Amino acid sequence: MISVGVLGATGAVGQRFVQLLSDHPYFDLTTLTASKRSVGKRYAEAVNWRLDSPFPASLADQRVVDTDISALKDVELVFSALPAELAGSIELACAKAGVGVCSNASTHRMFDHVPLVVPEINGDHLGLVDLQRDEDGYDGFIVTNPNCSTIMLTLSLHPLQQYHIRDVKVSTMQAISGAGFEGVPGMGILDNMIPYIGSEEEKMERETGKIMGEFDGSTITPAPFAVSASCHRVPVIDGHTMAVWVECDASVDMAKKAFMSYKAPFSGLPTQPDDSVLYHSEPDRPQPRLDRMRGGGMTVSVGRVREGLRYVTMGHNTIRGAAGGSVLNAELLKEKRYL
Amino acid sequence: MISVGVLGATGAVGQRFVQLLSDHPYFDLTTLTASKRSVGKRYAEAVNWRLDSPFPASLADQRVVDTDISALKDVELVFSALPAELAGSIELACAKAGVGVCSNASTHRMFDHVPLVVPEINGDHLGLVDLQRDEDGYDGFIVTNPNCSTIMLTLSLHPLQQYHIRDVKVSTMQAISGAGFEGVPGMGILDNMIPYIGSEEEKMERETGKIMGEFDGSTITPAPFAVSASCHRVPVIDGHTMAVWVECDASVDMAKKAFMSYKAPFSGLPTQPDDSVLYHSEPDRPQPRLDRMRGGGMTVSVGRVREGLRYVTMGHNTIRGAAGGSVLNAELLKEKRYL
Amino acid sequence: MISVGVLGATGAVGQRFVQLLSDHPYFDLTTLTASKRSVGKRYAEAVNWRLDSPFPASLADQRVVDTDISALKDVELVFSALPAELAGSIELACAKAGVGVCSNASTHRMFDHVPLVVPEINGDHLGLVDLQRDEDGYDGFIVTNPNCSTIMLTLSLHPLQQYHIRDVKVSTMQAISGAGFEGVPGMGILDNMIPYIGSEEEKMERETGKIMGEFDGSTITPAPFAVSASCHRVPVIDGHTMAVWVECDASVDMAKKAFMSYKAPFSGLPTQPDDSVLYHSEPDRPQPRLDRMRGGGMTVSVGRVREGLRYVTMGHNTIRGAAGGSVLNAELLKEKRYL
Amino acid sequence: MISVGVLGATGAVGQRFVQLLSDHPYFDLTTLTASKRSVGKRYAEAVNWRLDSPFPASLADQRVVDTDISALKDVELVFSALPAELAGSIELACAKAGVGVCSNASTHRMFDHVPLVVPEINGDHLGLVDLQRDEDGYDGFIVTNPNCSTIMLTLSLHPLQQYHIRDVKVSTMQAISGAGFEGVPGMGILDNMIPYIGSEEEKMERETGKIMGEFDGSTITPAPFAVSASCHRVPVIDGHTMAVWVECDASVDMAKKAFMSYKAPFSGLPTQPDDSVLYHSEPDRPQPRLDRMRGGGMTVSVGRVREGLRYVTMGHNTIRGAAGGSVLNAELLKEKRYL
Repeated sequence: MISVGVLGATGAVGQRFVQLLSDHPYFDLTTLTASKRSVGKRYAEAVNWRLDSPFPASLADQRVVDTDISALKDVELVFSALPAELAGSIELACAKAGVGVCSNASTHRMFDHVPLVVPEINGDHLGLVDLQRDEDGYDGFIVTNPNCSTIMLTLSLHPLQQYHIRDVKVSTMQAISGAGFEGVPGMGILDNMIPYIGSEEEKMERETGKIMGEFDGSTITPAPFAVSASCHRVPVIDGHTMAVWVECDASVDMAKKAFMSYKAPFSGLPTQPDDSVLYHSEPDRPQPRLDRMRGGGMTVSVGRVREGLRYVTMGHNTIRGAAGGSVLNAELLKEKRYL
Repeated sequence: MISVGVLGATGAVGQRFVQLLSDHPYFDLTTLTASKRSVGKRYAEAVNWRLDSPFPASLADQRVVDTDISALKDVELVFSALPAELAGSIELACAKAGVGVCSNASTHRMFDHVPLVVPEINGDHLGLVDLQRDEDGYDGFIVTNPNCSTIMLTLSLHPLQQYHIRDVKVSTMQAISGAGFEGVPGMGILDNMIPYIGSEEEKMERETGKIMGEFDGSTITPAPFAVSASCHRVPVIDGHTMAVWVECDASVDMAKKAFMSYKAPFSGLPTQPDDSVLYHSEPDRPQPRLDRMRGGGMTVSVGRVREGLRYVTMGHNTIRGAAGGSVLNAELLKEKRYL
Repeated sequence: MISVGVLGATGAVGQRFVQLLSDHPYFDLTTLTASKRSVGKRYAEAVNWRLDSPFPASLADQRVVDTDISALKDVELVFSALPAELAGSIELACAKAGVGVCSNASTHRMFDHVPLVVPEINGDHLGLVDLQRDEDGYDGFIVTNPNCSTIMLTLSLHPLQQYHIRDVKVSTMQAISGAGFEGVPGMGILDNMIPYIGSEEEKMERETGKIMGEFDGSTITPAPFAVSASCHRVPVIDGHTMAVWVECDASVDMAKKAFMSYKAPFSGLPTQPDDSVLYHSEPDRPQPRLDRMRGGGMTVSVGRVREGLRYVTMGHNTIRGAAGGSVLNAELLKEKRYL
Repeated sequence: MISVGVLGATGAVGQRFVQLLSDHPYFDLTTLTASKRSVGKRYAEAVNWRLDSPFPASLADQRVVDTDISALKDVELVFSALPAELAGSIELACAKAGVGVCSNASTHRMFDHVPLVVPEINGDHLGLVDLQRDEDGYDGFIVTNPNCSTIMLTLSLHPLQQYHIRDVKVSTMQAISGAGFEGVPGMGILDNMIPYIGSEEEKMERETGKIMGEFDGSTITPAPFAVSASCHRVPVIDGHTMAVWVECDASVDMAKKAFMSYKAPFSGLPTQPDDSVLYHSEPDRPQPRLDRMRGGGMTVSVGRVREGLRYVTMGHNTIRGAAGGSVLNAELLKEKRYL
């Protein structure tokens, strides 16, 4: 068993990490950190559990510790669910102190030596960890997963990458859980939608290039196509849906086949779904409420492939798009013996 | 006063027509038609009034008549809120019998001699009515308004048409009222969205070309750009929102100016809003619940103009996008002395 | 014209006051107060207008002033939309300085000399203002309106009061606007309801007795029946609905007649609706989205009168239940020459 | 293994039965019936699967059969998810032909010899099956479960029954899934609630007396208290919430203890939850989205116990309140050797 911690274990993404790790075959969740006012409390007291799955009773009595390197000496790996403005220094301190970091925060994503990984797409980018160790003097590492909407987009694009993608336009319809529990007021979203999510479009446009870029052992050359995003919030609890236009060499039939025959380049990881990408042939699918929990929330659904080339993709934003994506990264790190 | 009727006065769009016409300065709503089982009933009994504005008391005691030409001899103009599969023969019978038809049904929209009109854009297409009279032997006429989502799209494109539009991609987030009162089950749309609306994409792609095309006095040459649409239903009562990409010669600033300075080519029509197109400078607008009733539901809002060229547009689908659009067509017909 | 101000003009209830007063026949809205960081700004800049009615352009350039007595010397009357914890001292300062206060805040509601008024029910309680002037040395006054849900309950009970009410049980289904714009997170209320609203049950139980109590010229004897409330939040924007059981001497038919024949004891006030209480005979009404705007949001709807005696009542919580109720109080004060 | 069938396997409740039975330890789901137009189709084709759990692949290729006794000869037990108007004759035919029936339909619920069972409360009423066999000549049997809202109400009342319940008032806030997939239009329920559910109040009032009544071996004496219900539909997918007033001898503390210490009178049944009744001490619980899946959807939650005696209860309407309740009845029938 590998001893792991969750940084920011009481927040929305933190709770998802706790849920996914409370019963993991080889990650042993020994450490839960939160802000000062929660330190010393039992986790059951410190957290306002808001997932619809039951609270993990086995963690109820664990004492919450400070989000500080001094409290993390005994863990081998931490999952970071911290807000971007808090993640920087503590993640760096961990890496230097020999603790691995799998981070959902955006802070380090675009750093040259930091892999931004969707395991099915660019597991080879984990090779950057060697540079972190050789050149930056980290005993641990920092590995990041992308923004929630970027994950769905890139996974749906990956089967088409063989057809020379030249341009991507994407219009998102994103769930409110992506903004955290208090992020979107009910008065703002009931019988309404909001055509704006701060920094989201920039993240999708920038991160996609890095993830789908080529790694030559020392640097990443971004993928040679532009992404133009329009991001919108809709009254859905979980599940980001996107309408995508891709300029590439695939016909509708070639694209459908690519989606149907897509396979992850690895297998047997505990959090890995049967299908990383699932093609729906029904005319009105995927739908977030009906399809978000496929593959335990780790499957990205694709449907409505039409001339254009147009399609619709959807995935669970706080599982595949956040905590689950990060855990899968950690599992791949272990597979590749970085843990 | 011009004596008018509403065909299909008890349905969702029919109720909007009745609401807009119950207090009109020169249309006198004398005739309400519905299906056989309502004929002879008082309108107050026949209709299940589901708008949030009060039921028009002045029409409560009017007797509902059959949707048949024999019941329409005394009206000069009818507004058709019939479903497409019923609209064809009765609309034709009206036109032949000397009754003008302003139709919201899709049946005749793409007929060569039938104008498909958004008044601010292609009022000149009403010249086709002369052909109907000269060549088809109609004493009345058939004039149609486009599909609800096409209206928002074309009105938002019109200010940019001067900049040589070459390509349009549009992703819609449409309100459930567009499907009629029973159209979308609560179980289908709560905490959900549906990435499919039957025939909607085809209608948007086809109708836009005709509306924005050029009329030379005898035929319409479709606008020289393609539209690629992806249509989605979201949990919003009224108001269709769209993310639009336009390939054209306008910079962001030129586009903003075009939206801000846009003026309808006519003025003073009773149903006409102060602003046919309203530009919002706030980063998170337009929003359907907050902006759909601007201009009495007749204003189309535009915001978030960005590089790309990208923007967001939104309008009230059953007012501007249906009944209100049709009434404005009728007002322009009177202005142009076709009534 | 009577010069009036709104205390807390940028909040949710404050915006409703501004909307209702921006075009009032004899209240001239000259003064808008807000918190320090808004002082000096134009109202259009200071407020994030979130009502679906258009922003009142005539007030756009008014400068926001401090919520302090020094800024209120020139107004005759203020409407208080302040939170309870801020309302106490400024409302008192106004009353002492000769400024009338119509307050929506709960702070003074249960004070012995402060009338808690629903005009149709207990306009005579305004006689307490004489005591404020004679015994407390106020040159102005403080008059309060009840909690939003209490207003609907008491107005629906008033027609039955002649039948010796002995016991009341009420289960509410309240709109989220009652908690202010940021009050209820979307994650908390979408596909959900919350069976708890802090202090709401106590307010309904306490305030009902005072409003429906008897005033003998010096003190109020609370109404001789208990109220037991269970309060719940549901995913509705505006409109509080309640299921009510009343133990009294009325049969179902007597109750229906009482609701149908109910008349306000005054008439002609500008904000007064045609029907203070409107009886619905349809089996499935009232419904908040369809009926909340009746009487401009000032009508309380009643329906489903059944053995028990049971019925359902519904009204607009931020119009009749807050700002509109307060404005109607002010109009009655003028009618009774307190202004 | 006991061979079982589901009558009406394609509908909303039918799908829940299939979900619960597809992996049952001793019920072998061999037969799926539906209406004529589905007969002969593979189940995967015949059903429009609308649950958010994955479609049970093992049943995909089963051929749907007619809802007719001729197709049911080989099953020992059927679960009936038929609408009330279709259930009567086929359920009776089954019972006579030696097939046991566990029915969710309301048709036979109030028949003298038909047990209406919530296992934790009145498992002894299954003794009526002996009368069915002795006096009515059934080789099989008909056992029913109550209306969805009655199940929550009675399970929450059961711990208090020892305190001499004299009167019950209940106000429900019911999920839309209770009306079937097409039952509640989105336009009817978004930003709205509907204060009426046909026949629901009568069912709750009537069924509660029978379930909580006393069985002396031949007849059931209804429980000696009246129930007065007010039923409302709210925009929630699954989970009926209720505010309950109970006149009885229990203090608040006694009631809390009764809820906390409540135990089912049997144990080890496969579909039985750890807690049939779960007491929540948080002030704002239970909430349908967060608590409906407790105990796999079979636990009824109780909270907010206050003077009055008032409390709030909530449970999953299509699991505990329909299919799950019926399966638990069948498991108890096997335990008692009626199967």
